[in-house]
Amino acid sequence: MAFEFTLLDHPGDGNARLGRIVTPHGTIDTPAFAPVGTQGTVKALDPRDLHDLGVQILLSNTYHLYLRPGADLVAAMGGLHRFMAWDGPILTDSGGFQLFSLAARRRVDEEGVTFRSHIDGSLHRFTPEMVMRVQEQLGADIIMCLDECSEPLDRTYNEASLRRTHAWAARCQAAQTRSDQALFGIVQGGVFADLRQESARFLRALDFAGYAVGGLSVGESKQAMYEVLDVTAPLLPRHKPRYLMGVGAPDDLVEGVARGIDLFDCVLPTRLARNAAVFTRQGRLNLRNARFSTDPGPIEASCDCYCCSHFSRAYLRHLFRAEELLGYRLATIHNVRFLLHLMDDIRAAISDGCLAQFRASFLACYRSFGEQPELS
Amino acid sequence: MAFEFTLLDHPGDGNARLGRIVTPHGTIDTPAFAPVGTQGTVKALDPRDLHDLGVQILLSNTYHLYLRPGADLVAAMGGLHRFMAWDGPILTDSGGFQLFSLAARRRVDEEGVTFRSHIDGSLHRFTPEMVMRVQEQLGADIIMCLDECSEPLDRTYNEASLRRTHAWAARCQAAQTRSDQALFGIVQGGVFADLRQESARFLRALDFAGYAVGGLSVGESKQAMYEVLDVTAPLLPRHKPRYLMGVGAPDDLVEGVARGIDLFDCVLPTRLARNAAVFTRQGRLNLRNARFSTDPGPIEASCDCYCCSHFSRAYLRHLFRAEELLGYRLATIHNVRFLLHLMDDIRAAISDGCLAQFRASFLACYRSFGEQPELS
Repeated sequence: MAFEFTLLDHPGDGNARLGRIVTPHGTIDTPAFAPVGTQGTVKALDPRDLHDLGVQILLSNTYHLYLRPGADLVAAMGGLHRFMAWDGPILTDSGGFQLFSLAARRRVDEEGVTFRSHIDGSLHRFTPEMVMRVQEQLGADIIMCLDECSEPLDRTYNEASLRRTHAWAARCQAAQTRSDQALFGIVQGGVFADLRQESARFLRALDFAGYAVGGLSVGESKQAMYEVLDVTAPLLPRHKPRYLMGVGAPDDLVEGVARGIDLFDCVLPTRLARNAAVFTRQGRLNLRNARFSTDPGPIEASCDCYCCSHFSRAYLRHLFRAEELLGYRLATIHNVRFLLHLMDDIRAAISDGCLAQFRASFLACYRSFGEQPELS
Repeated sequence: MAFEFTLLDHPGDGNARLGRIVTPHGTIDTPAFAPVGTQGTVKALDPRDLHDLGVQILLSNTYHLYLRPGADLVAAMGGLHRFMAWDGPILTDSGGFQLFSLAARRRVDEEGVTFRSHIDGSLHRFTPEMVMRVQEQLGADIIMCLDECSEPLDRTYNEASLRRTHAWAARCQAAQTRSDQALFGIVQGGVFADLRQESARFLRALDFAGYAVGGLSVGESKQAMYEVLDVTAPLLPRHKPRYLMGVGAPDDLVEGVARGIDLFDCVLPTRLARNAAVFTRQGRLNLRNARFSTDPGPIEASCDCYCCSHFSRAYLRHLFRAEELLGYRLATIHNVRFLLHLMDDIRAAISDGCLAQFRASFLACYRSFGEQPELS
């Protein structure tokens, strides 16, 4: 089945949208959150877990899979879905964000990016055409244009960078050969409203299957991020899905949806979990905290996940202190379930025409305990 | 329900026995293998996995739980079953083997053992009475006498050590206050047939609920271990379960059953798995091996485990190279399932009166590829 995005009727709730994405590997109810399986596995979880948790789409990283085990190998094994035994929708990014993170280990020119592997220092080069070929080998349902993810606050750099990102988007589109993958363009432009607007208009003219907002949650303030969404989202085509890349803090999901975003991905729930930090409606907890040593209750009594229905905070604290693998797994199960449950609630609120009320009450409660600084 | 052991009728197959152990938390078909959950979790698995794999009993370590999180805490959380959310039978050891492993960090006297924690170097003391109290707090279905696990080849030391082990066994029996836990005695005596016989006779007179053979698989040859079983098993009471401690290599399970053993435990399947070593009927494989890089087949085509029914050797090799938690988990699932499947086959062979044939064909195949040295 081809890629399709449908907006569902709802009473109207500002800019928030209720929709459905159909892909060759299944349907995604939007707004949706995609957990990240960087190296072809969502860390600590197996595909059965993902289904049990209600995951409808996951993200995997082109940069990482290209380096190890290699796109040729994944293709020879029947593509990424078969290789990792996940039969639901997959989105692969283009590597743009990872190349940005490599900092001194990469050099950008008009044609592409030359970089050294974080694994063994070997030299590689990504061009728009190369990245399209790799993503076609991996075979995800949604694939991304190569973009340059630049310092969000540097105006001059963003101007030059945006020209490249736009040229690369056109080249990616021209290089696409598979018709069963939906290619999304990525709006860049740092925190600068006019650049974001220019980018949205430019990419819109290319008529992509969907539109991502990239280069956010990389050092700018939350307020700056929300302002970028405020100016960008209205310029994106109404009947195409809108994807906010790399954002997954609970409050950001609510704020993003309220500004018209349909899809999110982030390593936050899985990375936090491996550091013993877990989400609750009252903010984040760290399970290593001594006050949980004799706590017989679950992370969150209202949560329906396997972790919360079977294990106490005292047991989880023990697992983290003893560095037991089960601790990482159970906390990951909870954090992913928490975000998916939040997305369920958000969709229900949009459907009921009461997102504004949900947003106010959720944020008041979640921020009441003061969130810990994000781990990056 | 109280502890009960029943020998089942079968056509007769040398010394091998078919039986059933009933405990307050469920039934165990024997001969059985118990995976080890050292710190209150079988590493990389959750209780749901254990049920799916067909685990009927697991072992947890008194020494480790006493040090962390502490027996008082486990008791306050409702006992070990509830703490770790495993509702099936549990066996706790007495700590004897761990104290032996501490080597220079412990000092044995007639009354007990003084030792330093491997975690923080703090000073502790185990006596028979203390170990019974800790095991009663943990609340396992089967508990063990404190024994001294000594160097298997040192005659003089074994003589002195055996006197202590016997005195401690009597003191453990006297110290028991709970009637819902089955206390097993542990036969020691190194590789010395007469000491093993003396030990079996002494403990038999104390009339324990079951009898373990301890101090094996700690450096002596496999042949020496089998010879100890040959002289020891016939002296143990026929209608009590016989437990060979710390032994779990596939060939040793077959050889142990053939010599009249009903129960085994070992960290081998789980520890090997975390080192990428997996069991097959044709011997062990290491999944890191480059020859598996493009192997689309499962670890073992005939295996019914979740790992083998979904994932290729190529994917597993990728997970181990990328140090992904899922690799440890999938290999552990396979190795535990392999041993439980082997125990199923062993019980079926005894039931059919053809254990001798099964033993010959299994061992010929398993040893044909030459087993890698054991990891300790």
